[in-house]
Amino acid sequence: MNSIRKSANAEVLHRLNSGDPVLEDVGPAIEVLPGMTKNTILASGPPIPWTDYVGGQRDGIIGGAQYEGLAATPEEAVAKLDSGEIVVASAHEYDAVGSLAGIYTASMPVFVVRNKTYGNVGYCNFYEGTNPRRLNYGTYDQGVKERLDYVHTVVAPVIRDAVRAAGGIPLKHLMVRALHMGDELHSRNTAASLLFTNEVIPHLLKISETQKTGVEKTIEALTADNYFFLRMSMAAGKCIADAAHGVEGASVISAMAIGCREFGVRVSGLGDQWFGGSLPSVEAKLFDGHNEDEITWMGGDSVIAETVGLGGFAQAAAFPLQAYQGGSPEVMVQRNRELYDITVGENTHFKIPYFGYQGTPTGIDIFKVAETKIEPKLDIGVAGTNGEQIGAGVVKAPLICFERAVTAYKEKYGE
Amino acid sequence: MNSIRKSANAEVLHRLNSGDPVLEDVGPAIEVLPGMTKNTILASGPPIPWTDYVGGQRDGIIGGAQYEGLAATPEEAVAKLDSGEIVVASAHEYDAVGSLAGIYTASMPVFVVRNKTYGNVGYCNFYEGTNPRRLNYGTYDQGVKERLDYVHTVVAPVIRDAVRAAGGIPLKHLMVRALHMGDELHSRNTAASLLFTNEVIPHLLKISETQKTGVEKTIEALTADNYFFLRMSMAAGKCIADAAHGVEGASVISAMAIGCREFGVRVSGLGDQWFGGSLPSVEAKLFDGHNEDEITWMGGDSVIAETVGLGGFAQAAAFPLQAYQGGSPEVMVQRNRELYDITVGENTHFKIPYFGYQGTPTGIDIFKVAETKIEPKLDIGVAGTNGEQIGAGVVKAPLICFERAVTAYKEKYGE
Repeated sequence: MNSIRKSANAEVLHRLNSGDPVLEDVGPAIEVLPGMTKNTILASGPPIPWTDYVGGQRDGIIGGAQYEGLAATPEEAVAKLDSGEIVVASAHEYDAVGSLAGIYTASMPVFVVRNKTYGNVGYCNFYEGTNPRRLNYGTYDQGVKERLDYVHTVVAPVIRDAVRAAGGIPLKHLMVRALHMGDELHSRNTAASLLFTNEVIPHLLKISETQKTGVEKTIEALTADNYFFLRMSMAAGKCIADAAHGVEGASVISAMAIGCREFGVRVSGLGDQWFGGSLPSVEAKLFDGHNEDEITWMGGDSVIAETVGLGGFAQAAAFPLQAYQGGSPEVMVQRNRELYDITVGENTHFKIPYFGYQGTPTGIDIFKVAETKIEPKLDIGVAGTNGEQIGAGVVKAPLICFERAVTAYKEKYGE
Repeated sequence: MNSIRKSANAEVLHRLNSGDPVLEDVGPAIEVLPGMTKNTILASGPPIPWTDYVGGQRDGIIGGAQYEGLAATPEEAVAKLDSGEIVVASAHEYDAVGSLAGIYTASMPVFVVRNKTYGNVGYCNFYEGTNPRRLNYGTYDQGVKERLDYVHTVVAPVIRDAVRAAGGIPLKHLMVRALHMGDELHSRNTAASLLFTNEVIPHLLKISETQKTGVEKTIEALTADNYFFLRMSMAAGKCIADAAHGVEGASVISAMAIGCREFGVRVSGLGDQWFGGSLPSVEAKLFDGHNEDEITWMGGDSVIAETVGLGGFAQAAAFPLQAYQGGSPEVMVQRNRELYDITVGENTHFKIPYFGYQGTPTGIDIFKVAETKIEPKLDIGVAGTNGEQIGAGVVKAPLICFERAVTAYKEKYGE
């Protein structure tokens, strides 16, 4: 390896380790996302033209147009999308990350998470709740609308007020602790959601003097299931990863994303180009009543977690995950250990108790992936063709993305 | 093994597994503990005469007498204890368990935890807070008094009101979940404390309308450190274990306790006799500035946790413990695995994710301990001769207690 690449990758690792995500605010996408417009809909995955979107992700975009009031019917939405009156773009290009289909519309509230060390911001919208029918799984109907409205009008404003009352909520120490409590902060956010709740309670208490019902309902939303923190973890991952992007000569991944057509990666030293390839393969544990034929791909930027050393890269911190996504402790340990072979180093904050508090493997090097043929392992929710979550599992990022990135790296920087 | 013992032990295991601890109330020891009197002081460990208490536990009893206003000075306390005007007894005989020295006085609030399946109740008083100078570590001074007063007059009444508003708080499901989040519910109660906080928040919100400051301070106490749940876990363990006591022919332990002079065990089928022996040995990780010569024994009933399949018997659920009490993940796994050789079965609720959700080894059989010479391993806080917590570690229960119990069993039931 040439020494420029080595020092560039060391700089990327340093930036990944020194990121300091702080939840600063909550606000509508139209107000806080740079460049967002009233008629823009964001979706997860590398950027592709509207006409390339298929399946659940296409359905999600159409549903988003209806939810935002940009179209009264799916047909009207399609016509306006076809004509360019409604614009579709990749969330990643707006400093945001989308869960599954990852639909953002202008009025949706988003978490505003600033990387205090580097000043940049990452965004993510809110978790829709436990009901498997969700816009981010490509479904839109009256129930989905009502649940979105509830989160947007009841929960988000209370969280916003609490965050403002707190003067911002540092997230990294919560993430560090959650890794000691069975979370890997992608498919498991149980402890982090509790820790976050705990952090905002004193502020919620104050707010409850004037907004009693809202606070009660928000506490319910925070604690009723175990995923509330995921969107903050994603925004944190995004602002950490973005600060590590653009290091000249670096061969470390600064973003991964699942699209409805292919998986893609972006590399710190290779500008804004995405390197795509086939769709990933998945080992899934499906909910009762579902089968593998139903598995479909409709996007997913939540693999930003693995990009910064979480999720699949911290599986051995989260043995309870086996109940949700299958696998055995032995497999989880073996999978997690081999990922050290494809990263440039270890995380200095995110640590795995079972590995004697060794830092998680961090900074995925395209050369190491291409040479070892060890694919990054990613913890994901699995979508079904009917537009619901039907399970969860472990995805292997396709090698071809990394091989193409290596080719581009060699073209730019020489052998 | 004769078939009476086998079926008796199966019954004990069934009772240990089917215990259902519910926090019903909080009240002063004098009002809720059966048989408690104004001039009684309880201490942890098997029952011994006042004159046998030594070291920190003796100091704790004297401090308790002062705290309760039974004596103005240590000298007066000793005189009244010598004359029998102040009575000392074992907490275990009052259905209660004491942490470390385990001092209970009449006015102290205690958790009232009922085993809903069997109707019996277990009690434990409140955690004093993070300051290493505590009455339960044999220290008494103005600071200790103030911290006790704070817990008793500010925190306990709010918890009592919340518990009553909730109509009781079932604890077992919290304990089950905490084991999936890095706790073993003896030396680590981080997740359980958060889960409990989460459970009472809706009730605290209501109470805060009239008791704002008290609720704010209580939330601080609940969340400022990570031990608040320990005393509830202990009371839960006590009422689970007591329901498994008194099964004719059973050779399973129904209580273990550390005294200032010796370790002792009680056996389900051998009545109220304690089988004592030498003090245990300990592998400790000491706080900075302390050394092994300072380690002292001043009691501890918290090993009720291990009696019901928690603590050391669930160490592989709590890898983060290595940061607190030392050891390595490998040693924790090996220690936990070998305990299956000395128990009659597995817990049907308390499970270990790292073991593929296998139940914790539960129901310590005196015969199996004596035959295999595998001592029960117990997670404890370590006290120093100057009367503070100086570290934490893993204790081996002395074999001699189990051997003496086996002898007594054979005398009663034949070979």
